[in-house]
Amino acid sequence: MIHTYEMTVRGHEMDSFGHVNNAVYLNYCEQARWEILREKNLFHYFTDGGLFLVVTETTIRYSGEARVFDELVIKTELMKESPYLVFKHKIFNKNTGSLITKATFKTLLLSQDRVPQDIPEDFL
Amino acid sequence: MIHTYEMTVRGHEMDSFGHVNNAVYLNYCEQARWEILREKNLFHYFTDGGLFLVVTETTIRYSGEARVFDELVIKTELMKESPYLVFKHKIFNKNTGSLITKATFKTLLLSQDRVPQDIPEDFL
Amino acid sequence: MIHTYEMTVRGHEMDSFGHVNNAVYLNYCEQARWEILREKNLFHYFTDGGLFLVVTETTIRYSGEARVFDELVIKTELMKESPYLVFKHKIFNKNTGSLITKATFKTLLLSQDRVPQDIPEDFL
Amino acid sequence: MIHTYEMTVRGHEMDSFGHVNNAVYLNYCEQARWEILREKNLFHYFTDGGLFLVVTETTIRYSGEARVFDELVIKTELMKESPYLVFKHKIFNKNTGSLITKATFKTLLLSQDRVPQDIPEDFL
Repeated sequence: MIHTYEMTVRGHEMDSFGHVNNAVYLNYCEQARWEILREKNLFHYFTDGGLFLVVTETTIRYSGEARVFDELVIKTELMKESPYLVFKHKIFNKNTGSLITKATFKTLLLSQDRVPQDIPEDFL
Repeated sequence: MIHTYEMTVRGHEMDSFGHVNNAVYLNYCEQARWEILREKNLFHYFTDGGLFLVVTETTIRYSGEARVFDELVIKTELMKESPYLVFKHKIFNKNTGSLITKATFKTLLLSQDRVPQDIPEDFL
Repeated sequence: MIHTYEMTVRGHEMDSFGHVNNAVYLNYCEQARWEILREKNLFHYFTDGGLFLVVTETTIRYSGEARVFDELVIKTELMKESPYLVFKHKIFNKNTGSLITKATFKTLLLSQDRVPQDIPEDFL
Repeated sequence: MIHTYEMTVRGHEMDSFGHVNNAVYLNYCEQARWEILREKNLFHYFTDGGLFLVVTETTIRYSGEARVFDELVIKTELMKESPYLVFKHKIFNKNTGSLITKATFKTLLLSQDRVPQDIPEDFL
C-alpha cells in the first residue's frame, strides 16, 4: 500500500540559495509519517501508550530542487523489517512529475523508557 | 478585503511543551503573506525587480494553543500606512472557531540596496 | 540585572533574502531565556514541577540585519508585572555594536493544567 | 584532517518528544560545513563566484539522544570522491563522550547555472 500526502512549499523553508534546505525534506517526510499515524487511527494508540517512533537511520537522495509554491506529492511505502518499521518516501513535484527526493527512514517503536515495542499489525 | 489562508499544524512544529512554538506562528503569518503576493500576481513583480518586503515591527498576542493536525485559518487584512504596508493577521482554530493568535506586521518594500519603494496599488 | 548571552548566526538560519529570517530572532530570544533558567538553577525547578513559561505577547522591532557568522550579543532584562514575567531583549552585533533587534516577551508561569503560578523570587 | 566544531543544544530544537528532532541534526552538520568554509577562507571564494555546495545524498545514523544544554562536538572529515566532495560528520556528547549521530553528506560544487565545478585544492 502506498500512502499519499500532498503539500505546498512555504517561503520560509527556502534557504539563502533560494531553494528548500536539505534538512527541511526530513520535516516533510516526518509529516507524511504523522499523517499515516492519523489515517490508521494509531495516533491516540501512540500518545495514550506513551509510545513513539524514533528514527534510527535515514538515507536521502536529492535529485531535484523545490521552491516556494511548488506543490509536492509524498508517496510513502511501509514495510516491517523486524524490529524496525521502515518508511520509504518519494517526493515528487506534482506538476512536472519529476522526482525531487527519495528517502528511507528506519524507525523503532519505543516506550517512554526507550524499550522497543512490537509494531501493531494495524500499521501494515 | 480580508485574505484567507488555511493550513494544518505539522508534528515537528510542536516544541517540548507539546504545542506549537511561539516563533512558528511567525512562519505561518509569513506564509499567509507569500500567498497574498501570489494571488495578487505580485510574486514575479517582486522577484524580477529584486524587491522584498522586510518586516520592521511585529506585535503578536497568543491567546490559545495549537497542536499537530489542528486546522488553522489565517485571516489577513492589509493596510497602507505610508511608507509602511501593514498586515494584520488573525489565526483561528478552524473547527472550534477560537482565536489562537493575533499579529500585526509592519513591512517596508525595499530594493536590493535597501532603498524603500512605493507600494504598488495592486497590493491594496 | 542584565543577563548576557552570546551566539553566532548559523547558515541555515538565513532565508532566501540572504539574511536571518524574522521568526528566527524569536528562537534566539527563547534561547536567551533558557540560559537564564539554567544560570538561576530554575531549570530543574521547572521541569520537576511540570511548570513552563508560556509567551502571551511579543513585540519586536527589527532595526538591522544579521548574516551567517555574525556574532550577536543578547542582553536581557527581567521584570515582574504581576501576574506576568516580562523579558526585554536587545540583540546587538557584537563587532559593530549596532542594535539589530529589540523585543519584549510577556510570559506567564503555568502548571501542566494551564493554571498561572507565582513567579519564584529567585527569578528576579 | 579532522575539523572540530562545538555547539550547545537550544531549547527550541527539541520536539514534542523532548529530544532534538532528527531533522535538526542536519542543521548542525550544515553549520559544521559552513565553519569549515570560513576557516579555509573559502566563504568569499564561494559567494563571490556564485558557487554553492549542494547536498546530493545524506546517510545519517542516530545512536543517542540530545537535549537542551547538551554540549556537542562535531568532528568532520573531508574527502574528495570526484566529482563529489564528501563530509563525514560524527556528533558526540562532549561530557559523556558518547556518539550521538554519524552522518555522511555527499556534495557537489555548483555554479548558479547548476554546472558542477572542480573542488578547489584548498578544501582538502
